[in-house]
Amino acid sequence: MNYRMITYILGWILLFESAFLLIPSIAALVFMETAGYAFLMTIGICLLVSALLIFKKPKNTDLHSRDGFVIVSLSWIVLSLFGALPFVLSGVTTSYVDAFFETVSGFTTTGASIFTAVEALPKCILLWRSFTHWVGGMGVLVFIMAFLPLSGGRNMHIMKAESPGPSVSKLVPRVRTTALLLYTIYFALTLLQFILLLCGGMSIFDALNTSFATAGTGGFGIKNDSIGGYSPYLQIVIGIFMLLFSLNFNSYFLILKGKLKDAFNAEIRTFLLIVAGAVAAITWNIRHMFGSLGEALRHAFFAVSTIISTTGFATTDFDLWPQLSRTVLVLLMFIGACAGSTGGGIKISRIMIIFKTIFREIRTAIHPKQIKKISMDGKAIESDVVRSTVNFFACFVMIFAISWLAISFDNYDFTTNFTAVAATIGNIGPGLSAVGPTCNYAFFSNFSKLVLSFDMLAGRLELFPMLVLFSPATWKKY
Amino acid sequence: MNYRMITYILGWILLFESAFLLIPSIAALVFMETAGYAFLMTIGICLLVSALLIFKKPKNTDLHSRDGFVIVSLSWIVLSLFGALPFVLSGVTTSYVDAFFETVSGFTTTGASIFTAVEALPKCILLWRSFTHWVGGMGVLVFIMAFLPLSGGRNMHIMKAESPGPSVSKLVPRVRTTALLLYTIYFALTLLQFILLLCGGMSIFDALNTSFATAGTGGFGIKNDSIGGYSPYLQIVIGIFMLLFSLNFNSYFLILKGKLKDAFNAEIRTFLLIVAGAVAAITWNIRHMFGSLGEALRHAFFAVSTIISTTGFATTDFDLWPQLSRTVLVLLMFIGACAGSTGGGIKISRIMIIFKTIFREIRTAIHPKQIKKISMDGKAIESDVVRSTVNFFACFVMIFAISWLAISFDNYDFTTNFTAVAATIGNIGPGLSAVGPTCNYAFFSNFSKLVLSFDMLAGRLELFPMLVLFSPATWKKY
Repeated sequence: MNYRMITYILGWILLFESAFLLIPSIAALVFMETAGYAFLMTIGICLLVSALLIFKKPKNTDLHSRDGFVIVSLSWIVLSLFGALPFVLSGVTTSYVDAFFETVSGFTTTGASIFTAVEALPKCILLWRSFTHWVGGMGVLVFIMAFLPLSGGRNMHIMKAESPGPSVSKLVPRVRTTALLLYTIYFALTLLQFILLLCGGMSIFDALNTSFATAGTGGFGIKNDSIGGYSPYLQIVIGIFMLLFSLNFNSYFLILKGKLKDAFNAEIRTFLLIVAGAVAAITWNIRHMFGSLGEALRHAFFAVSTIISTTGFATTDFDLWPQLSRTVLVLLMFIGACAGSTGGGIKISRIMIIFKTIFREIRTAIHPKQIKKISMDGKAIESDVVRSTVNFFACFVMIFAISWLAISFDNYDFTTNFTAVAATIGNIGPGLSAVGPTCNYAFFSNFSKLVLSFDMLAGRLELFPMLVLFSPATWKKY
Repeated sequence: MNYRMITYILGWILLFESAFLLIPSIAALVFMETAGYAFLMTIGICLLVSALLIFKKPKNTDLHSRDGFVIVSLSWIVLSLFGALPFVLSGVTTSYVDAFFETVSGFTTTGASIFTAVEALPKCILLWRSFTHWVGGMGVLVFIMAFLPLSGGRNMHIMKAESPGPSVSKLVPRVRTTALLLYTIYFALTLLQFILLLCGGMSIFDALNTSFATAGTGGFGIKNDSIGGYSPYLQIVIGIFMLLFSLNFNSYFLILKGKLKDAFNAEIRTFLLIVAGAVAAITWNIRHMFGSLGEALRHAFFAVSTIISTTGFATTDFDLWPQLSRTVLVLLMFIGACAGSTGGGIKISRIMIIFKTIFREIRTAIHPKQIKKISMDGKAIESDVVRSTVNFFACFVMIFAISWLAISFDNYDFTTNFTAVAATIGNIGPGLSAVGPTCNYAFFSNFSKLVLSFDMLAGRLELFPMLVLFSPATWKKY
């Protein structure tokens, strides 16, 4: 374990965080809000700690695989620990655990909130919440590593640990250029949504917040009724952009290069098929609840889009829908978005690999001597990827089960507990029952809030970086 | 596909079923019940169909791996299809789907019932329900194959497909002798429980039914309040025997041979640890609901024993317990009993292998160059067993998810749907909410009843024999 190097990188993380904190500070200045002091104080604290950590560059810059995991998980924890300060310093909450939960929920793009009425919050606080989504969406470490004065293949360890999905492919040979390309696409899509929202008559502040929260597939709302009060045009734009941010960003790169056929790969086709199927089923199931089939379709589309993209906005209280729709939505929580997107969940490609593995297992039972490789998009998937995908799934279910047990100490109902864990480990935000789209997570005990914070981080960082922290082997000397 | 051979074996299955049906017929004679005619008619039908199928022995007796799977799944379906007839012919139900559900529930040792008040049923019907548990507990095919005039290694295919657990070991070189040994242990334990129940003042009829249902870890009750009305002594005896039937039967063989250390292997130690932990947690959680700690302990012990053994008896309505206890019980439904027992669920040894796989995955992340084998009881587990165990788990979860979605069309609540699937695929019986221990499955639609019947069969036959039926490759010529 290269402790010195880890703290050095954590120092850089804090330096970047102080830069991120400038955004809400400016907002406080524009809106003349006293809560701005909370951000300035936090910037001061971040700079101070950062200076202590990056004062001297470590001599030994070697990073092993486990260092990569530890750096990723600790960075996200440190980002959240310091990012939580403005909530407490501004007095919008008195509980540091609540503030930490809110910030983890922000950076992990979950969108589960402990605030009961967000409209009462200062605008700079709202912007900070939304901005953490935007920062967390693409993964902050890859970004920082691209600019950090460190070279060599070690960045790949970190990119692997931070990027969502079973496998990471570099678009271009250099990690730094790949990161830059991905961030450009991310920025451009966010800007496009911002403009389209302005065209629909949204205010600049609302459009900025909504674009940040959509791009990161986060889902913190700035209105008490989330997206429900906006016009159908705005709801549809947001619904479409949630889906756009759920697609593998590599596909946008391929589209730009004119490789349309490669861009619409099996994962994206499956994703669109699942979306279409779910929208159709829910529209049929809720058609009697709305004035017209068009309205039912709009709400069904938005709900499917918000859940499968793991964003968590809401146009209506889908907790009141019939059981079929509710079950479809809960299953979508687990499925999640495409690999290489900003969305969470298990990911479409993993689900595909798991089903292909099951089908192969059945084939093997029928023809024990024929052992076929699993393939996707015409390419065989390496057995290592198949193995780690199925193991990931098993691990996901086990963390789910243990968290579910842990939060049941609070004695809330079955549906609340089950969907609270599903909505946090999948980075969605709202669940059903007491954590439904019109509710929040304030009522949970501190212990449960920490368990759910762990789940959010584990879900966002693809489980293993967080689990590695708990292994004694990690903390041994090389 | 050797169709002729398959129908030949199905014919034998029906011949044995007609023999099984003699037991309730005798009961009808003893209790002078007219429902006995229903059994005699069914025996007649079974004998007729059987005669047509086994009239001529097939020339080609070759069985491939897939034939083994198809024989196992079709045998269980055929047993249930014909075993359902007495329920309809005696008029205790007018719905054949209900009768089929009840019989599948019996043979798969689930114990989920469609009857609202069992005390009103004729005694011969009650005995038939309990007896199907006993027949299903050990697996009827292994028994039949042991006596069938077929020789050679092909029996192993069937034993593999029918026996619960990730790996089947022959106790002695010959399959037939192994089967005989296991059935002797099964019979002896059942007899022992029967005697102990009689000693506690239970009537012969009650003791017979209860012993059959305990031995198979089935759980069909013969009283409307299941086991609640019996004395604490009887409840404790039943609770202990449910656990005894959840242990790997190989261990009894080892105990008889004096190999005590081998008998208490890692799986059994883990099983007992889980039982102790769950009982302690639930006792603490429900202590305020009962007069004394001893009473709370007794109910907690019985509930843990009935659920982890996947039996499904009840001494009290655990659906009314606090959420922690309910969650522990639901998780135990998934864990299930030991491999090689009569219990269902995922099985302790599989859960252990999955956790070991996850730990290895974490170790691999920390030390990518060290790849260690997973071991249990000091022996390395073959990578094939690890792979198929994790795949089994993934498959289990997927079947669970699809079934959950399918039955949500009926629009019952979240907890009902979730635990109905858990309680059927795990072969437990009662779940929570509308399928709680004081309730039954009568209210589900026919479609849902068929889905749940599939789940019971899939759960009992370890998924793949049932899935193989749906693969077109199965039905192609060699």
